[in-house]
Amino acid sequence: MNKIARRMADIQPFHVMEILKRAHQLEAAGRDIIHLEVGEPDFPTPPTIVEAARDFLAGGHVHYTPALGLTALREAIARFYHDRFGADISPERIIVTPGASGALMLALAVTTDPGDEWLLPDPGYPSNRHLVRSFEGVARALPVDASTRFQPTPAQLADAWTARTRGLMVASPANPTGTLLTQAEIIALHEAVAARGGILIVDEIYQGLNYGVDASTALTSLEDVFVVNSFSKYFGMTGWRLGWVVAPQAYVRQIEKLAQHFFISPSTPAQHAALAAFTPATLEILEERRHAFAARRNTLLPALRELGFRFATEPQGAFYLYADISDLADNSETLARRLIEDAGVATTPGIDFGDNAPDRHLRIAYTTGEARLVEAAERIARVLRTG
Amino acid sequence: MNKIARRMADIQPFHVMEILKRAHQLEAAGRDIIHLEVGEPDFPTPPTIVEAARDFLAGGHVHYTPALGLTALREAIARFYHDRFGADISPERIIVTPGASGALMLALAVTTDPGDEWLLPDPGYPSNRHLVRSFEGVARALPVDASTRFQPTPAQLADAWTARTRGLMVASPANPTGTLLTQAEIIALHEAVAARGGILIVDEIYQGLNYGVDASTALTSLEDVFVVNSFSKYFGMTGWRLGWVVAPQAYVRQIEKLAQHFFISPSTPAQHAALAAFTPATLEILEERRHAFAARRNTLLPALRELGFRFATEPQGAFYLYADISDLADNSETLARRLIEDAGVATTPGIDFGDNAPDRHLRIAYTTGEARLVEAAERIARVLRTG
Ligand SMILES: Cc1ncc(COP(=O)(O)O)c(C=O)c1O
Ligand SMILES: Cc1ncc(COP(=O)(O)O)c(C=O)c1O
Repeated sequence: MNKIARRMADIQPFHVMEILKRAHQLEAAGRDIIHLEVGEPDFPTPPTIVEAARDFLAGGHVHYTPALGLTALREAIARFYHDRFGADISPERIIVTPGASGALMLALAVTTDPGDEWLLPDPGYPSNRHLVRSFEGVARALPVDASTRFQPTPAQLADAWTARTRGLMVASPANPTGTLLTQAEIIALHEAVAARGGILIVDEIYQGLNYGVDASTALTSLEDVFVVNSFSKYFGMTGWRLGWVVAPQAYVRQIEKLAQHFFISPSTPAQHAALAAFTPATLEILEERRHAFAARRNTLLPALRELGFRFATEPQGAFYLYADISDLADNSETLARRLIEDAGVATTPGIDFGDNAPDRHLRIAYTTGEARLVEAAERIARVLRTG
Repeated sequence: MNKIARRMADIQPFHVMEILKRAHQLEAAGRDIIHLEVGEPDFPTPPTIVEAARDFLAGGHVHYTPALGLTALREAIARFYHDRFGADISPERIIVTPGASGALMLALAVTTDPGDEWLLPDPGYPSNRHLVRSFEGVARALPVDASTRFQPTPAQLADAWTARTRGLMVASPANPTGTLLTQAEIIALHEAVAARGGILIVDEIYQGLNYGVDASTALTSLEDVFVVNSFSKYFGMTGWRLGWVVAPQAYVRQIEKLAQHFFISPSTPAQHAALAAFTPATLEILEERRHAFAARRNTLLPALRELGFRFATEPQGAFYLYADISDLADNSETLARRLIEDAGVATTPGIDFGDNAPDRHLRIAYTTGEARLVEAAERIARVLRTG
């Protein structure tokens, strides 16, 4: 027996895992590797959140919760939208999920018929196109570049739209580019999508990780939109696997059915932990971390520019720099290989993020401390000099 | 905008949620409700497991793990198969997932093309047919009854198999019937499936919850089989959301790709907790609980028989009794409604489990203490007498 579904031929692994594997080999052999490939904060989960989980666990009663999540957590998320963004969202529309990953699965599964097309900016988060494919949709790339801050435009959407297009997925701040959409841009994209009877999914997982610009949400302006978010990044809770999606009311009951079968319920300890995520004590810690990320960015970005990495647009969010490396090498995979072997610096080549000039791009994450970033730049400089 | 995918028309909610909602309403109004509808142990997670999680969390470093799970946990599961069942399974084949739910999703997504048929015993666990449908497969019911202990037979499979059939899903012990397959029966089913080039998925989530018969696994006899399991039931960890699937080696790499995109990784705290699940101290607690479940079963089963509930086959596993109520009422939903309103006893009508005589059946879970079970039987008796 060996029956692999056809979809699997189109589903790629995270290529960065090869880099990571090599990093671990080198580390096992005693080499010091600086990890600039990792897509998660190096900070521990804030102690306030950890303690909430430990207190809850002490009771031992870790049962299933409602499929849509604890009412108290859905209300806390609604309050967060109100207090931070002035957006009034009914807790009913907030569905707690196993990470933004689970949120994206639900949003796609509930809307996508076989053959339906989704427009996705390229470069973009790799899983999106594979989730579309998993539910027998068709991912259509919208190639984006520095000229539009790596974000799609209504004109581009108008060109790419077909009778089979179901909608558009965007992220702000985006992975791998760290760029944001302005509120006006989101509204314009939504208008273009809505005019065609389509659906807009906005991935706000890096919300709160923004530098020199205010955090925002599409929900202050829009109602008929899917907004995906997560406790993974800003809240420092990757391993807990908890996120959410704010859905238009008409979809909530449908999503609930799917959530029951896909997940039964989101992690109970993670939900109790997350109840502490919006407290003033936690938010204070998170803002400190945001400042630390900003400082790292302000160190690394000019240092890399100095070395010939090009950034035609300045990333203002997430914790990624998406560098054009064409002045340094012909091929980003070759360069990434050289950087890990010769400089002991791990990075993510563009290939993970799509088909749009991946050879020319490298994603560099500042998910490690400033001293190490400085050292990484020095090591890279040495390798490029001897290149 | 309002684009609901066609699959959603076929995806049913857990109907028992209506009963649960009514139970909560009655409780809010001051009524005492005995919960015999709940599909999870009432016991807390064993303290040994809870403490492992709390110790891990104290460090605060709750990051993503590899998509297939922590190596140490995969090895611990392999040792468990060796020590308890004498089955030698390579840890490489063990994929840690967000519950058996996640395991079932991966097994189906990796094997099912649109239009592919899966044979599923009816009655059976409701999510199976909805997961098949979610990936555009077609669930075909194999109606089963007490004459075969609610398990399908090779002859039945031979009749139902078509050119589009991809495989067979079974569960042992099964939900809702609590019946087991013998090792000889599993082997015969596997032979019938393999002879047709199909795939066998065996759901062993209730493994270890067996009374008067030894626990077993298909893995002692079979290699080219998907075996799904979970920390939810025997290990008392429902809310942690952690399970696993043992896949044939040829599928592991394919499943890894999907797991990356669906889940990124299983819950990190849950994985560290589960490292304590196979220790002698934990297993001792779990065996005590198994004895408690056996005692409950031995109390409830004859009490219900006395009242006219019929059990043509004795359930020997899980924590469910699947009763034929045709001597008591015309319709199990009406009876369930009467039992909750008049007796304050919540049960699950057959409709959740398929289309095979659901009106005649009620699932009664002994996931509550013996004294309450006795009281439930007394209350039911009173209501039936006044009926
Ligand atoms: C843009 C984007 N969306 C979604 C996710 C999924 O994250 P999680 O499932 O941990 O919330 C990621 C993870 O890196 C991401 O970068
Ligand atoms: C037969 C069966 N399989 C799978 C599951 C899924 O359980 P979990 O995802 O908690 O492991 C259940 C839950 O009730 C079940 O009864």
